[in-house]
Amino acid sequence: MTMHHQEANLGVPRVTRILAEWVVNLQNDEIPTAVRREGVRTFVNWVGCAVGGASHETTDRVLAAVMPLSGEKIATVLGRVERLDPAHAALVNGISSHVLDYDDTHLKTVIHPAGPVASSILALAERRPVSGADFLTALIAGCEVACRIGNCIYPDHYTRGWHITGTAGVFGAAAAVGKLSGLDAQKMCWAFGLAASQSSGLREMFGTMTKSFHPGRAAQNGMLSALLAEAGYDSSERAIEAPRGFANVMSDKQDYAAITEDLGTRWEAALNSYKPYACGIVIHPAIDGCIQLRADLGDRVGDITSVKLRAHPLVLELTGRRYPKTELEGKFSVYHATACALLHGDGSPTAFTDEMVNDPAIIAMREKIEIETDPQMHEASVDVSVTLTDGNRVQKYVERAIGSAEKPLSDRHLDEKFTRQSTLVIGAEATDRLLAAARNVESCSDVAEIARASMPPGTASH
Amino acid sequence: MTMHHQEANLGVPRVTRILAEWVVNLQNDEIPTAVRREGVRTFVNWVGCAVGGASHETTDRVLAAVMPLSGEKIATVLGRVERLDPAHAALVNGISSHVLDYDDTHLKTVIHPAGPVASSILALAERRPVSGADFLTALIAGCEVACRIGNCIYPDHYTRGWHITGTAGVFGAAAAVGKLSGLDAQKMCWAFGLAASQSSGLREMFGTMTKSFHPGRAAQNGMLSALLAEAGYDSSERAIEAPRGFANVMSDKQDYAAITEDLGTRWEAALNSYKPYACGIVIHPAIDGCIQLRADLGDRVGDITSVKLRAHPLVLELTGRRYPKTELEGKFSVYHATACALLHGDGSPTAFTDEMVNDPAIIAMREKIEIETDPQMHEASVDVSVTLTDGNRVQKYVERAIGSAEKPLSDRHLDEKFTRQSTLVIGAEATDRLLAAARNVESCSDVAEIARASMPPGTASH
Repeated sequence: MTMHHQEANLGVPRVTRILAEWVVNLQNDEIPTAVRREGVRTFVNWVGCAVGGASHETTDRVLAAVMPLSGEKIATVLGRVERLDPAHAALVNGISSHVLDYDDTHLKTVIHPAGPVASSILALAERRPVSGADFLTALIAGCEVACRIGNCIYPDHYTRGWHITGTAGVFGAAAAVGKLSGLDAQKMCWAFGLAASQSSGLREMFGTMTKSFHPGRAAQNGMLSALLAEAGYDSSERAIEAPRGFANVMSDKQDYAAITEDLGTRWEAALNSYKPYACGIVIHPAIDGCIQLRADLGDRVGDITSVKLRAHPLVLELTGRRYPKTELEGKFSVYHATACALLHGDGSPTAFTDEMVNDPAIIAMREKIEIETDPQMHEASVDVSVTLTDGNRVQKYVERAIGSAEKPLSDRHLDEKFTRQSTLVIGAEATDRLLAAARNVESCSDVAEIARASMPPGTASH
Repeated sequence: MTMHHQEANLGVPRVTRILAEWVVNLQNDEIPTAVRREGVRTFVNWVGCAVGGASHETTDRVLAAVMPLSGEKIATVLGRVERLDPAHAALVNGISSHVLDYDDTHLKTVIHPAGPVASSILALAERRPVSGADFLTALIAGCEVACRIGNCIYPDHYTRGWHITGTAGVFGAAAAVGKLSGLDAQKMCWAFGLAASQSSGLREMFGTMTKSFHPGRAAQNGMLSALLAEAGYDSSERAIEAPRGFANVMSDKQDYAAITEDLGTRWEAALNSYKPYACGIVIHPAIDGCIQLRADLGDRVGDITSVKLRAHPLVLELTGRRYPKTELEGKFSVYHATACALLHGDGSPTAFTDEMVNDPAIIAMREKIEIETDPQMHEASVDVSVTLTDGNRVQKYVERAIGSAEKPLSDRHLDEKFTRQSTLVIGAEATDRLLAAARNVESCSDVAEIARASMPPGTASH
């Protein structure tokens, strides 16, 4: 077995070393403007989501558990009064940014890259001051590393049951923290080795608080990997491609070229997308269509007697829950999402609260919905039609839903998404200041200021 | 795929729940005396190894990296003056107890159970006082959980490239910390879920400092799992057996009966063994044989002209390194170990230092060694013969090496092993006190006192 493995590995390129050298040598001005702009959008979206999730019960519980273990409390828990040491802050911010299922998505791999990467380096920035320009480079490098490693092993790795946001994300966090810490190529390889030995997170945990734990722990683990390597703690220098390395052990597919090809010219980090709605992405076309239909209907929304949805079969397979009872179940119910979009025009986190999921008017609307699946339809399309009490039918066809690769969220829409989430947690005034600070990250001289701007009003600044 | 997985899972017993209920309900007096006695031996051996590894460079480096992140420094780093918060102490003690490759072994699965389990609960005991009797129950329960989960997936899981001490050990640590924290069965299930989502560690890291990181991080991750569950952080309740749970994702073999069969009557924890020598277990027969031969030869050791070893083929496959240059390479060189046993009668950590590996007399003896492999031989057997300058041959056949399942280390030998390691680090007097304290763990009213007894002389007590 050993011999077979070793022979099979003879022709494998040293992707760990290549990736490490690329990250170490990357200069701020080597990243094209459009890619840096997407990096800013990734950051803005992540800050909004982390603040949005800050008041969630999941965040309360992890804070209760880790507060007694925290070191010097110099790092901000976004959107909260509590502070933690940088490693625990990375954990908690990574959790809160994912808990509403509202964060960014690299669509090719379904990785949510900012959770692991941004959470680790923003927390680090409160220990080691960093400029916005360097921060943005580390963020983009980290997302690039996570997504390229994801491309190498997706889909087999994900199909097998790994939550790829955690398993690939830990490499991105290690790369980003290592970049900001000035690791040389050898130590960056060690950081990847330590990351590989912490790569974990199972899809079985979906539907529980442990799902959000994955990006948070990946952020914290990636940070620890880089800090250990910095202290001279050594590791394998071919952790990704070795016969018993990450890619062979955790996937049946290994496309190493996907890691190294066009490195620095083709940017996976620039393919990041942002959810317009706080739920499973396959429901987004239905919500988009219903919000548009609602605008057409005006007051006649109250006259709806039946709703017919035609969509790709994945919609029912993944989100066919007819009788959701909780927030989390609501996020996986196309019936609930459709009803809420028609009645309230809402697909944001406020549409998926326990209260809303159990609201009688929503439940009544849910009963009127019928869904027909059609494998010929694109996953980003939907056809919605409603019949009214007067017998009239109104119909809306969505070719590509907002937030899809072909129809990305505009900056304005991203700002609205940010504001809607953040205002609920830290109020309108602090939200405006925070959004402006996040949007201007690249010209910021000390990124820690952005983290601190997320503290609820009245919190004593540190 | 999903449907297939789900169907395939219909007949699977709820092993996560069964294991959780068993741990939660286990009473001190339900563990037979012989099993508790083995638990004490496991503990004594682990304390000795952790103190023995405390002055190793690997321990220095992890301490340098984590010290700035540490919370309230209430927990002892065994054998050192530094203190850390309990989670980081679990990490560092787990590392130092493994770094000399001298710790315990559950031979069926090659799991080193005490590293993850004892490291987590001894550190916890400095935050939450615990009696020796309760501590021992948690230690045995944790080892039982780790070894049974190991039995479920071994050997496929290990062959694939997972370092099973980390991947199964994290469940043991979660069980032990959860037991001492009084978790109910539901929260214990959550702790197992969180452990499953942190289960990690690759064999690719063998030969680097990251190998020892695995038991250390498993101890820390297991502790975090139990503390999160305690705070109400929820998770899957069938993390081990679910279609996309631990056993399916991380192994092609799932023998669930091995987890639940004879639970509480057959004790895997009692099958723990302790290495007499500080190196790969396949070399132990050779060392044993050479030490015996050396006693027979007396002064004639200097007259050896050639050495012939007949052993199982695994010996050369795993430890065939002819020209080791470093301590770690020495541990994987049957040539070095044989030479050192013949010349110095030593198989303890002092036999595997960089200095010893590069010693000219040892190198000269290495050159005289020839090895013949024989697949008919038992892995615990060896045949050694030496030829002397006068042409005479002296031979020694070892049927079963010391430390093997059939020839376990006596208490006296364990004490010697402890003393030899510990004296080098904290001196003879402190070693005597510490050994006595560890041996008396079961009658101790506050286990934290044992941890504190490991501090080097002159250290101010807390």
